[in-house]
Amino acid sequence: MIRFDEMRKLSQVTPSKIVLLVMDGVGGLPDDETDKSELETARCPNLDRLAAEGICGLTYTVSPGITPGSAPGHMALFGYDPSSYDLGRGIVEALGLDVEVNPGDVVARGNFCTVDDNGRITDRRAGRVPTETTRELCALLGEHVRVSQAEVTFFPGKEHRFVMRFRGENLSANIGDTDPQHEGMEPLEARPLDESASDTAAMINDAVSQAASLLADKHPANMLLLRGFSQHPDFPSVSDVFHLTPACIATYPMYRGVARVVGMDILPAGESLQDQLETLRENWDSYDYFFVHYKKTDARGEDGDFGGKVQAIEEFDAALPSILELKPDVLIVTGDHSTPAALAMHSWHTIPVVLWAKYCRRDRVTEFSEPSCLQGGLGQLHAVELMPLAMANALKLNKYGA
Amino acid sequence: MIRFDEMRKLSQVTPSKIVLLVMDGVGGLPDDETDKSELETARCPNLDRLAAEGICGLTYTVSPGITPGSAPGHMALFGYDPSSYDLGRGIVEALGLDVEVNPGDVVARGNFCTVDDNGRITDRRAGRVPTETTRELCALLGEHVRVSQAEVTFFPGKEHRFVMRFRGENLSANIGDTDPQHEGMEPLEARPLDESASDTAAMINDAVSQAASLLADKHPANMLLLRGFSQHPDFPSVSDVFHLTPACIATYPMYRGVARVVGMDILPAGESLQDQLETLRENWDSYDYFFVHYKKTDARGEDGDFGGKVQAIEEFDAALPSILELKPDVLIVTGDHSTPAALAMHSWHTIPVVLWAKYCRRDRVTEFSEPSCLQGGLGQLHAVELMPLAMANALKLNKYGA
Repeated sequence: MIRFDEMRKLSQVTPSKIVLLVMDGVGGLPDDETDKSELETARCPNLDRLAAEGICGLTYTVSPGITPGSAPGHMALFGYDPSSYDLGRGIVEALGLDVEVNPGDVVARGNFCTVDDNGRITDRRAGRVPTETTRELCALLGEHVRVSQAEVTFFPGKEHRFVMRFRGENLSANIGDTDPQHEGMEPLEARPLDESASDTAAMINDAVSQAASLLADKHPANMLLLRGFSQHPDFPSVSDVFHLTPACIATYPMYRGVARVVGMDILPAGESLQDQLETLRENWDSYDYFFVHYKKTDARGEDGDFGGKVQAIEEFDAALPSILELKPDVLIVTGDHSTPAALAMHSWHTIPVVLWAKYCRRDRVTEFSEPSCLQGGLGQLHAVELMPLAMANALKLNKYGA
Repeated sequence: MIRFDEMRKLSQVTPSKIVLLVMDGVGGLPDDETDKSELETARCPNLDRLAAEGICGLTYTVSPGITPGSAPGHMALFGYDPSSYDLGRGIVEALGLDVEVNPGDVVARGNFCTVDDNGRITDRRAGRVPTETTRELCALLGEHVRVSQAEVTFFPGKEHRFVMRFRGENLSANIGDTDPQHEGMEPLEARPLDESASDTAAMINDAVSQAASLLADKHPANMLLLRGFSQHPDFPSVSDVFHLTPACIATYPMYRGVARVVGMDILPAGESLQDQLETLRENWDSYDYFFVHYKKTDARGEDGDFGGKVQAIEEFDAALPSILELKPDVLIVTGDHSTPAALAMHSWHTIPVVLWAKYCRRDRVTEFSEPSCLQGGLGQLHAVELMPLAMANALKLNKYGA
């Protein structure tokens, strides 16, 4: 893995354009009946054409055996080693909701949840209360929760999700989650993980206890859970390291949040893949790197819906020709992790990847699928290597050393 | 990657012999018409025999996507991670010209260049002036350029190239290049990159300004550019780390220079591959590790001469039987990088490698080419792993741990 200080010296600005298409959770597992994975089952002539003309492989975003969350998965695809560039859950949620996070602020991801009369959690997501309810509850809490050391703000997300932001002096994010991640347990106290965090922890416990009183009669959303206390990371940007002018086209908050952390411009993505492609076309001349995120493959995988995921892949495939019409110099299609319908969750399995470019040294793979990509010229590689490979294939890298 | 301190403990001296044959820039890209790379096009029965009897793979010398210069490429082949063992341009050039560099000396790579009346660079290589002209100019500068803090010496290289050496007390090499790397700009001042380098920078600027006056009427070589200020690196030697007695047989200065940095004996290589093989035979009993460098594959690749590179491969192939007659215990054939004729420059593409030895566990590859090596038993690996693999196959490594 090349270091960023080295990459900064090698990268140069050229007119060539790179497009990274992320089919979230695209990797899968064979169906018991047919012995074919979602990708093998889908009819995807355009992906197959890319595979035939490009160079294929299998990638992992953290390390073999590790199932990544969406944030580390995407950090790796952007060229950032997730074990060095660690993002708290809170900051990712906050950035994805367009919450302003200043240096010094502390943010946490919140869930409204249900507790029983003994204070034990019976539903960590409060029956996935409607987004509208969460808006009302956030307004209520925002109006009444007051602590002396900081300004407290609640930002509603989708369904039961929200972000809690503390803005004040000398706050620390080194605080343990109040979410025990298991039902049947009571919410935890916010625990300081080092001495300097004890004031902040006390303040958070004060705020949570005020919130608990305000929510007491709001069953099923009669309590809240916090996790991923974090501050704004000070990471080098994609334009600093790779000298690219990057744009993100993603319909979901989380992915925009991660892209924003590495300094991408966030373009309006609309609601559908068609909207996203329209944005891509309109902004084609203004950027030299585009990250386009496609959610449906992961969503259907998480539902355990094999057929739905197959359909999502086919829908994505049908959109490829309009991207190729723009004549990108380098096109990469891959995922941030696998989400096999058989598991109905993110998994550790390697992810098919194709890199399509004029000088890619194509291999003999002619089908975009897990077993085919195993024969590909990229071999099995850490996803952080994809960004240097994209840069190389875009002829944007100078020679390393004399 | 095994650490050197571990390697030192594992390595033992035995009578077995290792030969590393570097076909510079051997990796390529398919021809548009035939869809076959230079290696696939060449008739190379001896390389194919090695592939069939040996274990094959694809290697990269820095990291995926990175196009290496010759120095880092070779450092990796010798077992030294180029990102830890970084060689300045100046030192590589100096060592390759057999310039004596003592601890404390500062050397830089020089170009004679052409500037216009406004002092702007119009040709960074002064029309590639003949080597003879560079000799005369270096003699002139050597006679007249004088600074108080150091002895300044100019060593002519090929065409427009030379090395400038400063020998004195308390010199620093932490100095920015005077070569802006672009035409249309003026040469830069030598800038100190830290405070301790400011005296050295002032001295260099003084020397450069004297040289500029002396060159003023020597159009097209009417100015000079310096880059890669560096000092002699203090790297552990191949004999220290691997307990080998290594020899280098290379016809070009740069490769001898890198080999000298890691402590190899530099044997007279003559002008041709035949000369090199003669040297190999004559010195067979005196060393247990030979690095033989073959330049022509890279030279033809850099020329964009597909057919010429094919021929260079075939010429190398024809020489293999005479090497095999010496009965090396381990023979490795690979390159330091790819130089596809299609790109006419070094590239980032992985490099075919074959390791031939009695116990190598041969794979099913029967042809030495990019697509065949992709199926090989070595997989895709960092070139720094080749030295431990060579040592292992030469039965020169003890067991790691109890």
